[in-house]
Amino acid sequence: MTAALSATSANKTIDLGPAVELVSKEEGHRQPLAPEFVSAEDFSPLEVAYDFGRIRREDIEAGPRNIWRYKKLLPVPSTVEETPNTEPGCTRLVRADRLAKALGLKSVWVKDDTGNPTHSFKDRVVAVALAAAREFGFEVLACPSTGNLANATAAAAARAGWRSVVLIPKSLERAKILTTAVYDGDLIAVDGNYDDVNRLATELAGEHPKWAFVNVNVRPYYSEGSKTLAYEVAEQLGWRIPEQIVVPIASGSQLTKVDKGFRELGQLGLVDASPYKVFGAQATGCSPVSAAYRNGHDVVQPVKPDTIARSLAIGNPADGPYVLDVVNRTGGAIEDVTDEEVVEGIRLLARTEGIFTETAGGVTVATAKKLVETGKLDPDAETVLLITGDGLKTLDAIENHVGPKATVPPSAEAVAKALGY
Amino acid sequence: MTAALSATSANKTIDLGPAVELVSKEEGHRQPLAPEFVSAEDFSPLEVAYDFGRIRREDIEAGPRNIWRYKKLLPVPSTVEETPNTEPGCTRLVRADRLAKALGLKSVWVKDDTGNPTHSFKDRVVAVALAAAREFGFEVLACPSTGNLANATAAAAARAGWRSVVLIPKSLERAKILTTAVYDGDLIAVDGNYDDVNRLATELAGEHPKWAFVNVNVRPYYSEGSKTLAYEVAEQLGWRIPEQIVVPIASGSQLTKVDKGFRELGQLGLVDASPYKVFGAQATGCSPVSAAYRNGHDVVQPVKPDTIARSLAIGNPADGPYVLDVVNRTGGAIEDVTDEEVVEGIRLLARTEGIFTETAGGVTVATAKKLVETGKLDPDAETVLLITGDGLKTLDAIENHVGPKATVPPSAEAVAKALGY
Repeated sequence: MTAALSATSANKTIDLGPAVELVSKEEGHRQPLAPEFVSAEDFSPLEVAYDFGRIRREDIEAGPRNIWRYKKLLPVPSTVEETPNTEPGCTRLVRADRLAKALGLKSVWVKDDTGNPTHSFKDRVVAVALAAAREFGFEVLACPSTGNLANATAAAAARAGWRSVVLIPKSLERAKILTTAVYDGDLIAVDGNYDDVNRLATELAGEHPKWAFVNVNVRPYYSEGSKTLAYEVAEQLGWRIPEQIVVPIASGSQLTKVDKGFRELGQLGLVDASPYKVFGAQATGCSPVSAAYRNGHDVVQPVKPDTIARSLAIGNPADGPYVLDVVNRTGGAIEDVTDEEVVEGIRLLARTEGIFTETAGGVTVATAKKLVETGKLDPDAETVLLITGDGLKTLDAIENHVGPKATVPPSAEAVAKALGY
Repeated sequence: MTAALSATSANKTIDLGPAVELVSKEEGHRQPLAPEFVSAEDFSPLEVAYDFGRIRREDIEAGPRNIWRYKKLLPVPSTVEETPNTEPGCTRLVRADRLAKALGLKSVWVKDDTGNPTHSFKDRVVAVALAAAREFGFEVLACPSTGNLANATAAAAARAGWRSVVLIPKSLERAKILTTAVYDGDLIAVDGNYDDVNRLATELAGEHPKWAFVNVNVRPYYSEGSKTLAYEVAEQLGWRIPEQIVVPIASGSQLTKVDKGFRELGQLGLVDASPYKVFGAQATGCSPVSAAYRNGHDVVQPVKPDTIARSLAIGNPADGPYVLDVVNRTGGAIEDVTDEEVVEGIRLLARTEGIFTETAGGVTVATAKKLVETGKLDPDAETVLLITGDGLKTLDAIENHVGPKATVPPSAEAVAKALGY
């Protein structure tokens, strides 16, 4: 596949903006930009390297109200906003005083990524993947997924007029099937579990040269999309890096890219390169990175996930070791929380700030609470929580926990009585 | 209730920004700003009247990225953005070329209000209601609702630290109960239908002087929130009014306020007062305004709703006659579409633009299609479609219409075969 595409690519100039090459994460081997994700030299993940020109705040601020305002910091063509895409990003950064008080923190901001087109941060990464895939000559946008990524991929392809191939385990909940199927791409239910689906995606990526699997063969570009969370937080704070940030961990990619985003802003002089601490959040039922952190390991022992936080349930997280590096370098920490705490985290954010997050957001909030209680989060430092997905997609998590206060006959007296008036 | 509140209000100055009084819609009787919604003189709805100072584009553009950038055009205190609120608005205006082509229109924009905090335009109206209610000394935010309004009210109250009382028919779908209950207000299920719940709300508003029922006793303020849809569309088009706009009709309030918003912008010189046509969209199963329009009536005959577009299912729409006025004055039209067309409208928007709307949005898209086919929408004129709510809330509508293309064993060959490769 790679050979075929390289041949195609050779006939035109690849414009991925400031991106200049791919670098292996372990030993720093360099290679030309291509739809590849593992180094043939050291078998470590490939990451995009850049040659940034001068980038000024004013240029960014004059850009569109979506992630393309940061296009000079992303592996995308300089004309990226001109081709149809879902225009994700520029979601709210909400000052959360009531949540802060409940958590025992002085100053908390919630980055509410539920406002994205398909209501999770996956719209960001898929938009970048699509832009790169178009440049490499792909024609089909594909992914294996159990939820948010399926929605984002199918929607982005529909908007672009591309065909999509989305692979899901056939046991997936009906709601998640519907929210993907409605975009009318090629949704395929696979008789197997998510691991089977994932393996199948890698196999298919090798056999179909026109299929860009966003999180497989164009993963180095895709994952850079998460940097925009860091850029937006910093810009929304008035070009400042928060002192503490809590990020949920699935593959670990998002956490490492948030760190990369903050570092780039400092290096480019767009913000003061002030110190910050990155904290990781996992559900105890799938906490391999948290366990490694706790035990002082630098490798991550795979686990079999068993948690309601399914969007975080990656038992063998590809970027686990790099998460440990970031957390240790910045002086952060990693914690994990039980499913009961996840539900309480969802409810706490909803009742204090009116924001309804999916289970992953519950993990983040509950972990923040635990990190305060264990003295790892500084209560006086400004703290940002990344809320990356929407509660409407994981209603089953709260199903047995919330409901009407009372059921009454249609009389004013009955209502008043039920409410203790 | 009003007497008690007037007494309270007399002790302080009411600051509702540019709002100066209430005016009855029928005969123009004027009265002081108060939490009242029907004129005691002519029994018609009360509407907010303003004394706008000079308002410049630059001042708006320098404002926050939410509806408060338009605070000088709304009945809210001048410090409205300083008190905790859900910060709705500034949702995407998406250029929809693929949808335009499918509809046979030259230029279409989709105003995608699914990006609001609780994913419908109700966050706008509730935010304005809350701001006014706070100023009048209310302490509880309340509503009768079957869905979007319940979510928005409960979330806004949670964010503000207010108590909420939300009344729903006990037969409401479990998903809609959960998405309201999670905010931990006083959610009361009523053993009756929506009409019973609505009557109960009016009764309770009379008995509880601290309860602001957003769509009852503070309705004149609440409904002004819909003007922000018009303001945003105009600003996002580069301070220009679109030639045609298609708006769904429930009570009819939104359509009349979009018109009011456009007119105000023209009167204030913020845009050229260019002509525009307002089109109304209903589901055939609840189409009293469409029927009145078709028959040339100026009164609206109530109906018993029977449609999947439940967020539009108001059989006796309070603002029906005013909708007819706006549509006739601007040279628009009203159409209605079957439930089958509603589903096709949802699917058309999803597959062409990657936007998943609730049934009300399906009504808007399908009606636009019908208006093109019947020659009422000018195919060459720039057209905006208001998409006011999210498909995640009405999954049942598409349940029997979309799904996986195939279920296959976990083999690359099986996938390729299923897709015809």
